[in-house]
Amino acid sequence: MGRCHANAFRSVGGLFDLPFLPTPVMLADATDEIARRGAQSLGFNTSSGDWRDVINNPDVEIVSITAPNIFHEAMALEAIAAGKTVYCEKPLSVTAASALIMTEAAEAANAVTLVGFNFLRNPMVQLAQTMIQSGDIGEVTGFRARHAENYMADPLVAHSFRTDVEGGGALADIGSHIISMLRFLLGPIVEVNAISKTIHPLRPAKTDSAERLPVLVDDMTHALVTLKSGAMGSLEANWAATARTMDLSFEITGTKGAIAFTQERMNELMLYRNTGTSASGFTRIETGPQHPPYGQFCPAPGHHLGFNDLKVIEVAELIQAHAGSKTGFPDFREALEVQKVVEAMQSSNKSREWVSI
Amino acid sequence: MGRCHANAFRSVGGLFDLPFLPTPVMLADATDEIARRGAQSLGFNTSSGDWRDVINNPDVEIVSITAPNIFHEAMALEAIAAGKTVYCEKPLSVTAASALIMTEAAEAANAVTLVGFNFLRNPMVQLAQTMIQSGDIGEVTGFRARHAENYMADPLVAHSFRTDVEGGGALADIGSHIISMLRFLLGPIVEVNAISKTIHPLRPAKTDSAERLPVLVDDMTHALVTLKSGAMGSLEANWAATARTMDLSFEITGTKGAIAFTQERMNELMLYRNTGTSASGFTRIETGPQHPPYGQFCPAPGHHLGFNDLKVIEVAELIQAHAGSKTGFPDFREALEVQKVVEAMQSSNKSREWVSI
Amino acid sequence: MGRCHANAFRSVGGLFDLPFLPTPVMLADATDEIARRGAQSLGFNTSSGDWRDVINNPDVEIVSITAPNIFHEAMALEAIAAGKTVYCEKPLSVTAASALIMTEAAEAANAVTLVGFNFLRNPMVQLAQTMIQSGDIGEVTGFRARHAENYMADPLVAHSFRTDVEGGGALADIGSHIISMLRFLLGPIVEVNAISKTIHPLRPAKTDSAERLPVLVDDMTHALVTLKSGAMGSLEANWAATARTMDLSFEITGTKGAIAFTQERMNELMLYRNTGTSASGFTRIETGPQHPPYGQFCPAPGHHLGFNDLKVIEVAELIQAHAGSKTGFPDFREALEVQKVVEAMQSSNKSREWVSI
Amino acid sequence: MGRCHANAFRSVGGLFDLPFLPTPVMLADATDEIARRGAQSLGFNTSSGDWRDVINNPDVEIVSITAPNIFHEAMALEAIAAGKTVYCEKPLSVTAASALIMTEAAEAANAVTLVGFNFLRNPMVQLAQTMIQSGDIGEVTGFRARHAENYMADPLVAHSFRTDVEGGGALADIGSHIISMLRFLLGPIVEVNAISKTIHPLRPAKTDSAERLPVLVDDMTHALVTLKSGAMGSLEANWAATARTMDLSFEITGTKGAIAFTQERMNELMLYRNTGTSASGFTRIETGPQHPPYGQFCPAPGHHLGFNDLKVIEVAELIQAHAGSKTGFPDFREALEVQKVVEAMQSSNKSREWVSI
Repeated sequence: MGRCHANAFRSVGGLFDLPFLPTPVMLADATDEIARRGAQSLGFNTSSGDWRDVINNPDVEIVSITAPNIFHEAMALEAIAAGKTVYCEKPLSVTAASALIMTEAAEAANAVTLVGFNFLRNPMVQLAQTMIQSGDIGEVTGFRARHAENYMADPLVAHSFRTDVEGGGALADIGSHIISMLRFLLGPIVEVNAISKTIHPLRPAKTDSAERLPVLVDDMTHALVTLKSGAMGSLEANWAATARTMDLSFEITGTKGAIAFTQERMNELMLYRNTGTSASGFTRIETGPQHPPYGQFCPAPGHHLGFNDLKVIEVAELIQAHAGSKTGFPDFREALEVQKVVEAMQSSNKSREWVSI
Repeated sequence: MGRCHANAFRSVGGLFDLPFLPTPVMLADATDEIARRGAQSLGFNTSSGDWRDVINNPDVEIVSITAPNIFHEAMALEAIAAGKTVYCEKPLSVTAASALIMTEAAEAANAVTLVGFNFLRNPMVQLAQTMIQSGDIGEVTGFRARHAENYMADPLVAHSFRTDVEGGGALADIGSHIISMLRFLLGPIVEVNAISKTIHPLRPAKTDSAERLPVLVDDMTHALVTLKSGAMGSLEANWAATARTMDLSFEITGTKGAIAFTQERMNELMLYRNTGTSASGFTRIETGPQHPPYGQFCPAPGHHLGFNDLKVIEVAELIQAHAGSKTGFPDFREALEVQKVVEAMQSSNKSREWVSI
Repeated sequence: MGRCHANAFRSVGGLFDLPFLPTPVMLADATDEIARRGAQSLGFNTSSGDWRDVINNPDVEIVSITAPNIFHEAMALEAIAAGKTVYCEKPLSVTAASALIMTEAAEAANAVTLVGFNFLRNPMVQLAQTMIQSGDIGEVTGFRARHAENYMADPLVAHSFRTDVEGGGALADIGSHIISMLRFLLGPIVEVNAISKTIHPLRPAKTDSAERLPVLVDDMTHALVTLKSGAMGSLEANWAATARTMDLSFEITGTKGAIAFTQERMNELMLYRNTGTSASGFTRIETGPQHPPYGQFCPAPGHHLGFNDLKVIEVAELIQAHAGSKTGFPDFREALEVQKVVEAMQSSNKSREWVSI
Repeated sequence: MGRCHANAFRSVGGLFDLPFLPTPVMLADATDEIARRGAQSLGFNTSSGDWRDVINNPDVEIVSITAPNIFHEAMALEAIAAGKTVYCEKPLSVTAASALIMTEAAEAANAVTLVGFNFLRNPMVQLAQTMIQSGDIGEVTGFRARHAENYMADPLVAHSFRTDVEGGGALADIGSHIISMLRFLLGPIVEVNAISKTIHPLRPAKTDSAERLPVLVDDMTHALVTLKSGAMGSLEANWAATARTMDLSFEITGTKGAIAFTQERMNELMLYRNTGTSASGFTRIETGPQHPPYGQFCPAPGHHLGFNDLKVIEVAELIQAHAGSKTGFPDFREALEVQKVVEAMQSSNKSREWVSI
């Protein structure tokens, strides 16, 4: 993810008209040596084995945090204290309590913050939001939403920071994406009822190790969800979904139509509008220059975007927010709200009851 | 639905090799006159305004019940008492208690029974069951299932037997289909947690009437479901799904693959098997003579089945069951189990708690 | 196909409101014994090993010809002479010259005729024609069309009437379907340029025989086609298309939109209309009661049609034509025009030149 | 396209492990001023209104030609003479004769050349080639291929270099892409038969001008094509295809299977293998790390590539070719072969005869 950030910073200047062009200053990693090699590979001039060196570097204006979740709070708090703009990967932290501390610190310092819910950057997702808000599908009544991948489907995938309790399991790791998507499209979530399952209860201690250690987080969670708007539906987070590589998907139904999307076909949005004619049906809208900011990547239709392009859009937004020409979204506050929903689902799974947010 | 049954009986003989050919004997309807016209149109020789006349007719061997749900119990009990084979539309009755009485009566009399969960007849659904049972997708871990249609999406659709409390709402009317499908494919359901919503709380008293009466049943239900096998997932029933005409659909994930289906493309089954090669992916299996009983309809591939063909298959099964050459499925006992799940979901929606079946 | 006709006649009365109900009178086949068994199985009262007995039977009003192509002319001419309505399978005959004789005889006798281009009966194809004729996609500029199946893909499929020169190969057997479709949707074809290939030049003399005989007809033909309207495009007929079971498909482009269809998803029509908005795209129209005559099969949406239903619609049209309440289409004249195009393509393949029709 | 090249050069270093990292040296454009602004925007240190300054610049090792086709020959010849590696946009030149001069000059000088048929860079296209060559679909028998876009569908799109006779129309502009694709996948083309049409015979002299000038090039061409391998099929080039943004597509049939692809879903390849089981069907293969060079962009599945990523892959290939670690493909020789096919089709359209290449 660090490499992905670096590449996005490198590419953004050729694609977007920005108030300034970012230049890579300093890269930190676990050791001096790892950091030195990373800096060389990614075009940074200086590096360090101590992340505080980045934050204390007066040439650094924007701190990008792609370390494991457990480090997010400490790094963000120091960066905020040093007056930096903070660009943090999701989830914001390991608990909502920690995320709240980070959010309050950022707001007290008036810091610019941005959290990497990159899937929201897709022009097709932006279009979905616009259509919903403008009433194209009427009043939203229900939905089904899902983030399913298969990267933990193999029981021989070993333990890592993802399977630590701090990692939070499938729900925190990718459930947070689909929760942020629902909030972005449909507004606040007020109540949840969730059930989780650890499909593979033992995993190798390390890759290729014969030792097996218990898994304490979920591989799959299904939840019922009610929204402030009155709509309701279901949500799934699943990192052991054998057949799926990136089924971040939703179908949202309203009184006049419906919208459906999957990241597995990220350049398409399916729209149904009840025209009352013999020609109603789902329309496959294909991304193009009429859907900003697609036009930054190509002036002509048919030149589809890829995943890395979403990260470039995110970095463009970050730079504009840093320059004050745009409010960054999703900021720490929004990421905190997502984290609260994750925790409510974890809590519901334990209590077997509905939990309010 | 009465017409649909009659047409299936009429067609079945030209398509299936059966132990005997059914002939239409007597048709009953609400009045003598309606019954007389129906009989003429559908090729019955005799008719009556009293359904007991059908049951008491010694030439009648099979009684087909397509009346509103509220009449199922009385009709079935009398038909069973008269020694008839009983073919009943779903849901079996208006309550699980009533369905239990019917089931026990049928079993005590050793009556042949069949309930019209016609979607199970699809060769693609049969193939899905075979694949799951033979381990093609490994151990099933999770699923998402849905029956969504739009026939009640318009708030001006008036009250009818469907919106009576006895009708049972979307959950009983079409949720029963997807519940029967889940049981058919994955086995018993042990626990549910459901939430329902009446999207249009007022409907016209009658078609085109200005009078509005409250709706006491659900338009949409979402439920969490756990299975005896240990798998879990979610289920939706929705008869106000604006964009959907027949989204009876499921995606079932196992440790080695997945299977997906929607009745909106009823001649296709999507199968994913993790081959570990560069060519893994969902395979679109198209129905053909290799998938019985497709070959009864056409010996060549590419000649797709339609909905009415499913009803013909069901009637062929009924005739074989009546002749003793096959056990009818789903019988009253199975339909009772489906009804229990429907009631458990209704109960959970009220109590806001998990309910065991 | 004889069985398919018989079943359609059997079913049609329960589905369509017709001026009269057909009853099976007499069935002929190659021998008395085969005919007797067929009659029993399909519900005919009488049978014969001589097809002339059917034609001379005064109770017979409609003669249905499903014999090999080589017999069509003789049977049709006698039936016309006997004053019968003639329902003939496609292609109309083995040459355009023969088809012309049949057509002129039918027209001289004012006989009602109908030819079994059943794919035209699909409500989605009817909708496509309506949309094109009403200008929904503007002026048609080009198209791609195809009928590809795999029933001859295996080189061990033996010789049969299909591989006789009189059978005409893939082009005559299924190319005739897509030619009739193009004419139905877009009007007359004026010029063609075709190339054919015999993919498997030797086939077993009979099933399981070790003897190999040369194949003198095409397995695959590709053609350029220009229309009277000025539009142009390409067409393929292929009965050795390994991956296809019924890809009777077309994409028709106009100045304002496009229409696409494949029989492999026969309940869907894809429509693109250039709306000039951010929501343009192909709309997947699903067949329903708003698309006649779907409503004859089910009053509700979502209950898809199957192949055999197309044959029922065809028979309904036949009965209405026989009763004089509708002009039958496609009649012998139209089938003759299709045959001329087939022959022009065969001729072009030999001469390697453009051939006018 | 100049900007697209520059961005690819900028991004490639962060994604690929290359023998050296390219740095932007000098940018030329029509005038000093335009060039100066372009250089600033794209990160070049120097610029010029005279393209010869780039070629004569001793710091320049690779010359990237994105000027209109009419300039390709002169620029390439001078660059080759100056000992540079030449990276040229397609089509290689305005005639095959010109392309031949360029090719012979490059080969005489042993120059490294690469032509921008970027669609070949797609991992899914590479996979298709591998599968075909390894016999996964058996012996190829036929195909259908197409490149259809809608950028000239509006008759008010004005004349430009594209509509000049030198531009070559739809056939040269995008037909060249699908021809290069066919050659890449299936080998040499030996004979063609084509028909072209100018759908909009008059276009504005300039954007928003009322003056109309005749269009002398094709908007749409359909062609029959035979291959050296013996396979045959059809091809379409169409830049007025109302409903299509990037339907660079093919379906290739072999004796054991088939492969289908469209650039409109560039992260998917459809593969059919006749397994002889009840589970045969088209498999939707989704691009991932198992399909090089996807892994350069992301180590995990599900992170789809976009169009611009194809250009990055192309530039990586260019740099490797320049460094001698790989032979560049497609080079001028290959682009010449494509151009010959384009000209043969143009010639066939005029003569109305088959034309050999």
